[in-house]
Amino acid sequence: MKVSKLFLPTLKETPKDAVIKSHILMLRSGMIRKSASGLYSYLPLGFKVLKKVIQIAEEEMDKIGAQEFLPPILTSRELWEETGRYSLMGPQMWRIKDRHQQDFVLGPTHEESFTDLVRRELSSYKQLPLIVYQVYKKFRDEIRPRYGVMRGREFTMKDAYSYHADETDLSKTYEDMRKAYRQFFKRCGLDTVPVQADSGSMGGKTSEEFMVRSHIGEDTIIECPACGYVANAERAECTLDYEKKEEAFKTLETKDTPNIKTIEALTAFFQCSPKQFIKTLIYEALDQEKVVVLIRGDLEVNQVKLTNAMMGKEFQLAKDETVVTLTQAPVGFAGPVGLKNVKIIADESVRYIVNGITGANQKDQHLVNVNFERDFRVDEFFNLRLTKKGDSCPQCKKELHSFEGIEVGHIFKLGYKYTQDMKAVFLDASGKEQHPIMGCYGIGIDRTIATVIEQNHDEDGIIFPMSIAPYQVSILPLSEEAFEPAEKLYNELWKKGIETLLDDRDLRPGFKFKDADLIGIPIRVTLGKKTLAEGKAELKLRKEKTNTLVLLDELSEKIEQMIKTEMEILNS
Amino acid sequence: MKVSKLFLPTLKETPKDAVIKSHILMLRSGMIRKSASGLYSYLPLGFKVLKKVIQIAEEEMDKIGAQEFLPPILTSRELWEETGRYSLMGPQMWRIKDRHQQDFVLGPTHEESFTDLVRRELSSYKQLPLIVYQVYKKFRDEIRPRYGVMRGREFTMKDAYSYHADETDLSKTYEDMRKAYRQFFKRCGLDTVPVQADSGSMGGKTSEEFMVRSHIGEDTIIECPACGYVANAERAECTLDYEKKEEAFKTLETKDTPNIKTIEALTAFFQCSPKQFIKTLIYEALDQEKVVVLIRGDLEVNQVKLTNAMMGKEFQLAKDETVVTLTQAPVGFAGPVGLKNVKIIADESVRYIVNGITGANQKDQHLVNVNFERDFRVDEFFNLRLTKKGDSCPQCKKELHSFEGIEVGHIFKLGYKYTQDMKAVFLDASGKEQHPIMGCYGIGIDRTIATVIEQNHDEDGIIFPMSIAPYQVSILPLSEEAFEPAEKLYNELWKKGIETLLDDRDLRPGFKFKDADLIGIPIRVTLGKKTLAEGKAELKLRKEKTNTLVLLDELSEKIEQMIKTEMEILNS
Repeated sequence: MKVSKLFLPTLKETPKDAVIKSHILMLRSGMIRKSASGLYSYLPLGFKVLKKVIQIAEEEMDKIGAQEFLPPILTSRELWEETGRYSLMGPQMWRIKDRHQQDFVLGPTHEESFTDLVRRELSSYKQLPLIVYQVYKKFRDEIRPRYGVMRGREFTMKDAYSYHADETDLSKTYEDMRKAYRQFFKRCGLDTVPVQADSGSMGGKTSEEFMVRSHIGEDTIIECPACGYVANAERAECTLDYEKKEEAFKTLETKDTPNIKTIEALTAFFQCSPKQFIKTLIYEALDQEKVVVLIRGDLEVNQVKLTNAMMGKEFQLAKDETVVTLTQAPVGFAGPVGLKNVKIIADESVRYIVNGITGANQKDQHLVNVNFERDFRVDEFFNLRLTKKGDSCPQCKKELHSFEGIEVGHIFKLGYKYTQDMKAVFLDASGKEQHPIMGCYGIGIDRTIATVIEQNHDEDGIIFPMSIAPYQVSILPLSEEAFEPAEKLYNELWKKGIETLLDDRDLRPGFKFKDADLIGIPIRVTLGKKTLAEGKAELKLRKEKTNTLVLLDELSEKIEQMIKTEMEILNS
Repeated sequence: MKVSKLFLPTLKETPKDAVIKSHILMLRSGMIRKSASGLYSYLPLGFKVLKKVIQIAEEEMDKIGAQEFLPPILTSRELWEETGRYSLMGPQMWRIKDRHQQDFVLGPTHEESFTDLVRRELSSYKQLPLIVYQVYKKFRDEIRPRYGVMRGREFTMKDAYSYHADETDLSKTYEDMRKAYRQFFKRCGLDTVPVQADSGSMGGKTSEEFMVRSHIGEDTIIECPACGYVANAERAECTLDYEKKEEAFKTLETKDTPNIKTIEALTAFFQCSPKQFIKTLIYEALDQEKVVVLIRGDLEVNQVKLTNAMMGKEFQLAKDETVVTLTQAPVGFAGPVGLKNVKIIADESVRYIVNGITGANQKDQHLVNVNFERDFRVDEFFNLRLTKKGDSCPQCKKELHSFEGIEVGHIFKLGYKYTQDMKAVFLDASGKEQHPIMGCYGIGIDRTIATVIEQNHDEDGIIFPMSIAPYQVSILPLSEEAFEPAEKLYNELWKKGIETLLDDRDLRPGFKFKDADLIGIPIRVTLGKKTLAEGKAELKLRKEKTNTLVLLDELSEKIEQMIKTEMEILNS
């Protein structure tokens, strides 16, 4: 491709709204443009990268015997109702009606769709294992789409599902997938860390996330440097070393706490540890069901554990109006004492608080010497606390550390949920009807691209790994006499199947260099007056600082060799 | 791929609901499965075909300098309002709200999206021409989805758009596209007929459809065998040889017509030609605007001409209730005399009716001796008649013929509508601000596949052209000793890059033959006990009746040659 013909609207300035490097660089290099919140268009340069990443994903899937499908994006409500997810999944689900007022969902994930396809054709154990996948757009109406294609509302996902006669067979495919994923990310030039994770509303058991360490990551990963324990904070455990103080129950009293609401302010006011407080949080689901959650003042609620405690139903912190209605007091004074007509659940930590402090459900008032059972009821206890840096390792009790990460892939052992709910069955070798056991496996394609750029850039622009670069070579003729040999090299390289860009624009060298660095093509060939006089050109890898002078006649072979070397590193 | 591992649910019986051959065969061969009305999943075999057809489309687009993009499927209402299409496009448009109650549309076509992308980056004539495209899912909530993927509600389209400094440049790209389209269909193994067409709600001027002759086609094409005139009935013209009878206006009278409503029944009752009647039709738009359309009794209204007459707004025949409310009479007795508070338009033919007959807007009554101007008003006259077989050719006045066709592609010269409405501008060579002129070009990818199958099948199944076959070769080992040489050949062919299927299932020969014929792989190799004893195998082209015996050692070379020959025919 000649740059003069390429739709390549590069930008000098950092675009508004873009804060992370990959987002800035994808916009500046003309890879993408924003259409609306969380909705992006890929322009030709970005689309080429997207296609290459998809191609690698397909190759790795095909290698392990997965077969590619293309189910519809529009999935009917009935399918989602079979598994209960039509009501369990919240406003993240894009819902739409057709002209006959039939309800559809824009597929956010396709367990139901694939299980429906499979159950209709499945009869014998001989058809198993069956590994199916697609690479296509998914839709999630994120509450806070951000960071460009890192968290969009419409995005390309490689999602695979596997069906097995038994758990041993599932484990085999799970291992194959784990290897295929590592290979996929490696081939894309990404370093990933495998992390135990919670499977959220997927309804699974064992699962593993592929994380990339990054300060812009939206996931917190807990790790123990001492014993090597590593898990997503959403799933991480810690040692629960609660002890009940040997202290007699004192008399319940009401104290004036004028305009004092937060744990910090209360700690200062009462001059005690935050561990003395019973934090009272009101949650609400989409269908307006409410639940009161109690937890010790120094701890936070783990949203995933809460969802699991509520049998998979998603709850959000309730709006202020809801709190006011329920507690009959302004926000900041909620407490469990005297609360009626609402379910109260509590974190295990609450069991151990003696003579605690909590809101009085009265403006500017708190209760002191509050004790479980004597003063308030708890309908059910769970482990709800969010593990954080500083907690004790669940394995070795040493102090836990944490880091931020970007989740680029996720594999799950799903179990029987979908095949049971949807009545998918096969006859085993003995002729008995069984449900297949399932796995599911996802890669965020757009996010993979953005993360590669997060990991591979410098102050001048992107540094694409050879495997997913939109073009492998960029030729810059800098003077008039350079155009002819540049064109010759361009044709030579294309003849070898090397994807080459020729910057044939009538622009100053500085401008060409800036664009070349910005769009990050791995190999740059510069043809200038001076070196041409010696029959040479400058050859430079984008990722390296130095360049070498190479004879024009030797260029194309040298380039071919460089590409081979780069690809070998990525594919090894 | 080994058939034992392939998800290939073939069916012996014709599935319910499937009436046309391609639909039946795509279901029976396990290419697709239905999810819901107008919504289909591609299974692995079908997906491979889909991918090949897309690949050919991309190659042909790239050859003429078009660049591939991927815009979002979700397009915001604001974009559609800029061109007025948010209200002009009827219930065919899938509309959806996000969690913030913002309106979006699932893109049915992407003129607005691409023009928005382009206008933001366009500044100079030097950036033109610009040809952009995508190959991705589109969404149209068809009132009658049918024939499988032939008319789905979610389908893959290759849609391209071009932007030019002037009409001459547009014409050049239009010609390039025409050639690329012919080449694309040829490479897919399809014979297409280029046909003049109306561009419907696209707002264009010149356009051409790529039609495939087929009795199941939903389009009627008018042609004149005498002079070669050919046009879609929607756009076809005919000689308008109306003459006004030299006859005095008679007195308007009311006649009893008990339960006589249709033109046929009225013709019989009044013992006159259908040309004597003023047919009165009530149409209604989505926003409930109504219009009364008058046309001579023997003629039909051309829906596209009507839409154009109504400035691009879509009108449908009104529901019975609407007719009753407007005419104060049951359906079948509408007429223009005395109709108030509604726009009345008429086909030119109505101007020439003297002493006509029409409904009296009274149950069981018609008016006779009705005359335009004396008895009823017409707000505006248009040419609204649908040209049909038997009309006179607009060029040579000979009798027109007609045939049915499937539209697989469509190219348009769009003009300035979108760039003007959306304020897309560039500076021309003299520094003057101008709107680019646009073209747009579409191919129905799924429909292309279905049409190829309509044209290429026999009573046993599909006969895939080599270019888009899911696999090029199918090997059938029929006896135990055949498995080893079959596997050897299979590995040999894959080494040459030949996509081969090996039917390694433990099934009777008859079953393997049936499946092989059904899925239509172009080359079949049969390894049986008898021929193996002579060191030979049977080689057969699916499209031919006879087979040849080939020495095992010569098989792979012979197959390679066969593929080359087949591909050369398609690519020539």
